[in-house]
Amino acid sequence: MPRYAFKIEYNGNGFAGWQRQKDHITVQGEIEKALRKLDPEVSSIFGAGRTDAGVHSCGQVAHCDLTKNWEKFRLKEALNFHLKPHKIAVLDISLVASDFHARFSAIQRNYLFRLISRRPPLILDSGLAWHVKYKLNLRSMLKARECLIGKHDFTTFRSTSCQSKSPIKTIKNIKISKLNSSYGHEYQFEFMAPSFLHNQVRSLVGTLEKVGSGMLTPEDVKTALEAKDRSLCGPVSPPEGLYLMEVLYPKNPF
Amino acid sequence: MPRYAFKIEYNGNGFAGWQRQKDHITVQGEIEKALRKLDPEVSSIFGAGRTDAGVHSCGQVAHCDLTKNWEKFRLKEALNFHLKPHKIAVLDISLVASDFHARFSAIQRNYLFRLISRRPPLILDSGLAWHVKYKLNLRSMLKARECLIGKHDFTTFRSTSCQSKSPIKTIKNIKISKLNSSYGHEYQFEFMAPSFLHNQVRSLVGTLEKVGSGMLTPEDVKTALEAKDRSLCGPVSPPEGLYLMEVLYPKNPF
Repeated sequence: MPRYAFKIEYNGNGFAGWQRQKDHITVQGEIEKALRKLDPEVSSIFGAGRTDAGVHSCGQVAHCDLTKNWEKFRLKEALNFHLKPHKIAVLDISLVASDFHARFSAIQRNYLFRLISRRPPLILDSGLAWHVKYKLNLRSMLKARECLIGKHDFTTFRSTSCQSKSPIKTIKNIKISKLNSSYGHEYQFEFMAPSFLHNQVRSLVGTLEKVGSGMLTPEDVKTALEAKDRSLCGPVSPPEGLYLMEVLYPKNPF
Repeated sequence: MPRYAFKIEYNGNGFAGWQRQKDHITVQGEIEKALRKLDPEVSSIFGAGRTDAGVHSCGQVAHCDLTKNWEKFRLKEALNFHLKPHKIAVLDISLVASDFHARFSAIQRNYLFRLISRRPPLILDSGLAWHVKYKLNLRSMLKARECLIGKHDFTTFRSTSCQSKSPIKTIKNIKISKLNSSYGHEYQFEFMAPSFLHNQVRSLVGTLEKVGSGMLTPEDVKTALEAKDRSLCGPVSPPEGLYLMEVLYPKNPF
């Protein structure tokens, strides 16, 4: 059976996350439904990252086996037709080797978190960024970020429901930039790592935001990391600012 | 009576445009309703630009007279509270001179038009940009734009329902830039002029897009402009890519 890889964009609002659930609309569930309209034998698709409810994607990668060969362009057009009116689009499709696995073959995931700091409610970015009403200190957040880069036990920044065997992860880089928004400022947090724990990015952003607002110091973040104690984590940030941007493989399948 | 100026952001989707209409939800109508919860005597607000249904704003300016003095911060907070859940936010408020008029005192309006060229449907930018499925030629559009800058009779690029006395307008500048989008390309068209005719920006973008797609040549645009003939205008572009970005005054009221 030919194996295909898909690059997928979605708006997380309105989905109970990536992973298929009985009685809930999920991204995986809707893509599988669309695929079955083309190939009733399709069993499951496998995604590189199981994003939570409300989390967006510009570059999720998934794979699945189909019973027959498809011309890429036709398969993409047919899938995007059957995915309507759900806010999911297949951006690219590729025929891959039978040992390609969207999740296990991935060597890096890049996430972006958008946070907009301004007093008035978000309008054009509503549902697309985390809104905070006060000013943040970029320099403090940049300082706090330093201790998080590299290989660490991230128990502090891990959901209690995380199923990963080990809390040890390696963050290759964290970038934080400040942009002028239509009013106020937008802070963009970029996270690059081979893989992440459940809720790790949102736990880290929630804690960095506390540093930006002056509730925590950069030293507090280092102490929290080293304590390996979930209770020292800042509040988990809301999902609507988070975007799975890119999944990297030893050889780009697209 | 003290006169206040307001800077207003809105998402045009879901509104029958700026201008108050009986039996339709409009931006002006909802702002007036919110103002009357604070000051029942308020008659009307006056906007700098009467944007069409579906057109967005990051910087619409309006003014109105209130019966009492308000502390700016409190007025802004109260208005934003009463505007919920409508996708309108008051970004800034200023007490202005009694001869300030949001529309007639304005000396320049800046509009942005976002066009995304890619095969798959828009997801994260759905309703926030014009979607075309084919590639566009930036160089041709840049060439076509040249003849449109300056003082011209824009009869060709004017809605038949335009109420402006004269079809002669001066476009100070048109910028077109090409950005990488999450997939495909985004073209941003910026228009700067003291004022515009009804549907002028959307008529110009609709025509420039025909040049980008190869249906018209840059010379055809010059011919169409000089003909002063509405039937030579390309199709009016859809509203969802258009943003009123900024209104300029001899002295910035904010």
